[in-house]
Amino acid sequence: MNWLVTGGAGYIGAHVVRAMTEAGERVVVYDDLSTGATDRVPSGVPLVVGSVLDRQLLERTLREHDIAGVVHIAAKKQVGESVERPLYYYRENVTGLQTLLEAMTAAGVDRLVFSSSAAVYGMPDVDLVTEDTPCVPMSPYGETKLIGEWMIAAAARAHGLKAAALRYFNVAGAATPELSDSGVFNLIPMVFERLEAGAAPRIFGDDYDTPDGTCVRDYIHVEDIASAHLAAARRLAEAPAGTSLTLNIGRGEGSSVREMVDRILKTTGHEDVTPEVTARRPGDPARVVASADRIRAELGWSARRDLDDMIRSAWQGWRHRHG
Amino acid sequence: MNWLVTGGAGYIGAHVVRAMTEAGERVVVYDDLSTGATDRVPSGVPLVVGSVLDRQLLERTLREHDIAGVVHIAAKKQVGESVERPLYYYRENVTGLQTLLEAMTAAGVDRLVFSSSAAVYGMPDVDLVTEDTPCVPMSPYGETKLIGEWMIAAAARAHGLKAAALRYFNVAGAATPELSDSGVFNLIPMVFERLEAGAAPRIFGDDYDTPDGTCVRDYIHVEDIASAHLAAARRLAEAPAGTSLTLNIGRGEGSSVREMVDRILKTTGHEDVTPEVTARRPGDPARVVASADRIRAELGWSARRDLDDMIRSAWQGWRHRHG
Repeated sequence: MNWLVTGGAGYIGAHVVRAMTEAGERVVVYDDLSTGATDRVPSGVPLVVGSVLDRQLLERTLREHDIAGVVHIAAKKQVGESVERPLYYYRENVTGLQTLLEAMTAAGVDRLVFSSSAAVYGMPDVDLVTEDTPCVPMSPYGETKLIGEWMIAAAARAHGLKAAALRYFNVAGAATPELSDSGVFNLIPMVFERLEAGAAPRIFGDDYDTPDGTCVRDYIHVEDIASAHLAAARRLAEAPAGTSLTLNIGRGEGSSVREMVDRILKTTGHEDVTPEVTARRPGDPARVVASADRIRAELGWSARRDLDDMIRSAWQGWRHRHG
Repeated sequence: MNWLVTGGAGYIGAHVVRAMTEAGERVVVYDDLSTGATDRVPSGVPLVVGSVLDRQLLERTLREHDIAGVVHIAAKKQVGESVERPLYYYRENVTGLQTLLEAMTAAGVDRLVFSSSAAVYGMPDVDLVTEDTPCVPMSPYGETKLIGEWMIAAAARAHGLKAAALRYFNVAGAATPELSDSGVFNLIPMVFERLEAGAAPRIFGDDYDTPDGTCVRDYIHVEDIASAHLAAARRLAEAPAGTSLTLNIGRGEGSSVREMVDRILKTTGHEDVTPEVTARRPGDPARVVASADRIRAELGWSARRDLDDMIRSAWQGWRHRHG
């Protein structure tokens, strides 16, 4: 059977394609190349260039490639941009998914793995976030991900879809330098960018109610994220109609921003640099760390790579991209 | 200045058009006539027949009629149907609003009054529901209304839109028999339909944790709903850019289903009929009654019509439609 991976030419998508093809699954990539890149698509994997808003192309692709399930990763994912351009985010992420679900229903494709995000939780006030922690998203980006989950759960009930929504925590690292993240929106590449500019990396606030005063997050290697998609896809093959899973993908371990910056400085040979502490950024929750119990119970999956794997591979990717 | 009323040929929309034109506002109706009817549109009020998914027609209508604000009432509104056809509801209610917001932004129209619903609250566990009661919608219909509020609030922040989301409680009654509700999805017309068929009206469950064991709701006359739209529209004319109001529209008084059925039987001369108590319907909350404090404070509005006004005018409408 064949899987369609939307956004398969992007950072996370390319890792999912890699994990699935290495495990023997047949994959087709669907990507509008707005942020994806063709050189991330392995040779032998068909690439359909198109938008998730193109209902006809989606349905034709599902039929012509005899697709049995979709891994829907294509989305806009910058929290700050989503505040500036909410209607664009709603169009791409909400109407895009709705269009995909319509095409799947029309073509009789009933399996869906969906990229959700810890952003659905907003500012959670718990030590470990479980899938039952109330969802109060704090940005249009987080809203669009929660809306996607709702839409999928409703389609599972109404149309017998089998679905898994995977709530990513803080994704980092790369399988190879070529597949690394080209964006500079997450902590690790932001530190690299400052170092490259000869500037001290910034820590946004050290007066949070956390052990060292800086924000605590759950970092997870993109190859672990990818293997979770493979596990979810295989689980859906066995699942009864109407199955709708919601699963955190995290390591279940918190790391503070200060701890991460110190590790990055060490790994990249910048032990002499002292980070600069500036004001808090609005909307940053103090602590967001996953409970990874449910995904272990449901899929038998857990993360295998650690912080050093993430930082080292991200640094190799950065040097590959930036000379 | 001119207002565009989407869904203005429907039950609630036609009452809003009536209230606004009687108050001297100039109104244009935009309706796809899927459930609306041209005979509800008063002579002299322009009618544009079109879908809220038609981006070009929306923008052209906003420009050609020199529209300054939109009252967006067009939507699919049957809870049960939304469970059966969630993607249809997401398309019409979510993508529809998103398309409208894009057209408004492009045409420079910055005022919006939006039909929301008490369905955003789901199963509230409070005596009086305030606008700060957590929103946990229990149906795709309720989800689409909460999503609409989120989208509008985000557009207000990003683009300076001025908006009011009005959360309707249980709408009933009519200004004239011709404007009455043609659907049979709410308690009052459901009782009429049973009586017409010579059957006993049904009460779905009398074992709720309420004084008489039947569900308690906040019924409000559609003419009161309409006057709240007028008050909101006028308030937005004075409001600063970025204003985003969320307001309950209810009477702040609970009525039990049994009390309502008894009143209906009396008003329609069926005192001899005994209602039939059947099983609960899944998803019915025990009690949903508005706090109407915020709308009184913000708009100086409160409801003026009582249960007898609602039942009498609904009955006149029913006899008008059903001979």
